[in-house]
Amino acid sequence: MTQPARIGIVTVSDRASRGEYEDRGGPAIREYLDEVLTSPFEPVARVVPDEVEAVASALVELCDARGCSLVITTGGTGPAVRDVTPEATEAVCQKMMPGFGELMRKVSLEKVPTAILSRQTAGIRGRALIVNLPGQPKAIRECLDAVFPAIPYCIDLVDGAYLTTDESRIAAFRPKSAKPPAGVER
Amino acid sequence: MTQPARIGIVTVSDRASRGEYEDRGGPAIREYLDEVLTSPFEPVARVVPDEVEAVASALVELCDARGCSLVITTGGTGPAVRDVTPEATEAVCQKMMPGFGELMRKVSLEKVPTAILSRQTAGIRGRALIVNLPGQPKAIRECLDAVFPAIPYCIDLVDGAYLTTDESRIAAFRPKSAKPPAGVER
Amino acid sequence: MTQPARIGIVTVSDRASRGEYEDRGGPAIREYLDEVLTSPFEPVARVVPDEVEAVASALVELCDARGCSLVITTGGTGPAVRDVTPEATEAVCQKMMPGFGELMRKVSLEKVPTAILSRQTAGIRGRALIVNLPGQPKAIRECLDAVFPAIPYCIDLVDGAYLTTDESRIAAFRPKSAKPPAGVER
Repeated sequence: MTQPARIGIVTVSDRASRGEYEDRGGPAIREYLDEVLTSPFEPVARVVPDEVEAVASALVELCDARGCSLVITTGGTGPAVRDVTPEATEAVCQKMMPGFGELMRKVSLEKVPTAILSRQTAGIRGRALIVNLPGQPKAIRECLDAVFPAIPYCIDLVDGAYLTTDESRIAAFRPKSAKPPAGVER
Repeated sequence: MTQPARIGIVTVSDRASRGEYEDRGGPAIREYLDEVLTSPFEPVARVVPDEVEAVASALVELCDARGCSLVITTGGTGPAVRDVTPEATEAVCQKMMPGFGELMRKVSLEKVPTAILSRQTAGIRGRALIVNLPGQPKAIRECLDAVFPAIPYCIDLVDGAYLTTDESRIAAFRPKSAKPPAGVER
Repeated sequence: MTQPARIGIVTVSDRASRGEYEDRGGPAIREYLDEVLTSPFEPVARVVPDEVEAVASALVELCDARGCSLVITTGGTGPAVRDVTPEATEAVCQKMMPGFGELMRKVSLEKVPTAILSRQTAGIRGRALIVNLPGQPKAIRECLDAVFPAIPYCIDLVDGAYLTTDESRIAAFRPKSAKPPAGVER
């Protein structure tokens, strides 16, 4: 029997980290994962201030010490001086994945012209995929709907956990040649 | 009463900087701003050769010494050895904004397949947004039409000047939560 | 009379480089060029393992020693730990051309949602354009169809060979102001 996949959820917000503001992004991501994933998973949530060091440390801890296969951040992707999530992500990733940011900006742009102000990106650290999302719950869902079909196979390719999704909700794509690990039904 | 926003316009061209060629890009940007902006602004124009040091110096002077909130460049974004505007922009920016280049290439691609050869980008230096545009006046207008709706709010987010636009021409987007500074009507 | 353009074709694959696997990507690129180019060209093929040093050396040799005007790679653009073609490309290029990767991911995304996992890019080294393609022959054709219209003019701009295409197949775009070299018909 396989262990549940660990998935990190990092809310990046000065106010939320000081308790001045209720974290809405983190719970929105958790709710989305509950709705979409059919394989067992264990969420690991963190709330950190908008500082490169704090965000980078949380990402490293979640990937390396906690063994997350996927880490999703929310917030800190804009042009303001305190928005540093993409810089922290780039600092800890071995490989950047530009296609995630391109596609998320494209789908957000259908809703609002300021979508081009988001600098959100994605990358690989060890056996984990890290994906930046915007801060607004509505934008979080739009972005995840766009990129989630590619996430399970991406994690396969870096030897992370095997994720499966509710196909009526998100049709995760794997090439026919990709085989599930022993004991796991596709 | 608020001071007029300063907007830098940088023509990057060896020939224009030597006076061998009439600068057409700079005036096209000026004309566009006159047409679209309803808030007062003061243009500050520069013409520099295609050299990283010259372009970077002009950007730094306009952002830091002249206090521009927006600096628009024209020219020098192609693959040729003398095309160095994106490199100079990256050298002086604290944050890069990849969504601008992505969207401008996308709209230019509807006109001409060589749009993918443009390496134009955008970024933040202090309280200023720097945006690279192509050299051709027609392409300048197409690119500005695409990204201008996001520019005023971007400048708000970096504490630059408050810009307003002729809504019949460019519908600048600001979230409902964004408030104009004291004494300025939205 | 002009010399044939040299075009490098680099298959990046551990298995193909050890002879355990038939190289299908390299021949697919060669076949595409035979079909599309009407100007004379000489292909120079290499098969290398998925290692930054090996890929970078092949690119440098093809551009600098062999005088290729265009070098096309296939394979090694995904998120896996052995996928390093984009890193090797970036290491040897003086200028990166982000528009190529953006457009190739966009067209591949119409076929398969995992297209965003490709990190393929392009760049300029001296008088050569280097373009990364995916490994699958079908995806190679889709990507080349998308970007080839811009390739001949890109190579003109870096003083490489003058390429012409079968217009019924690929309508290579050059601005009206662009003149072919002496003795070459457009």
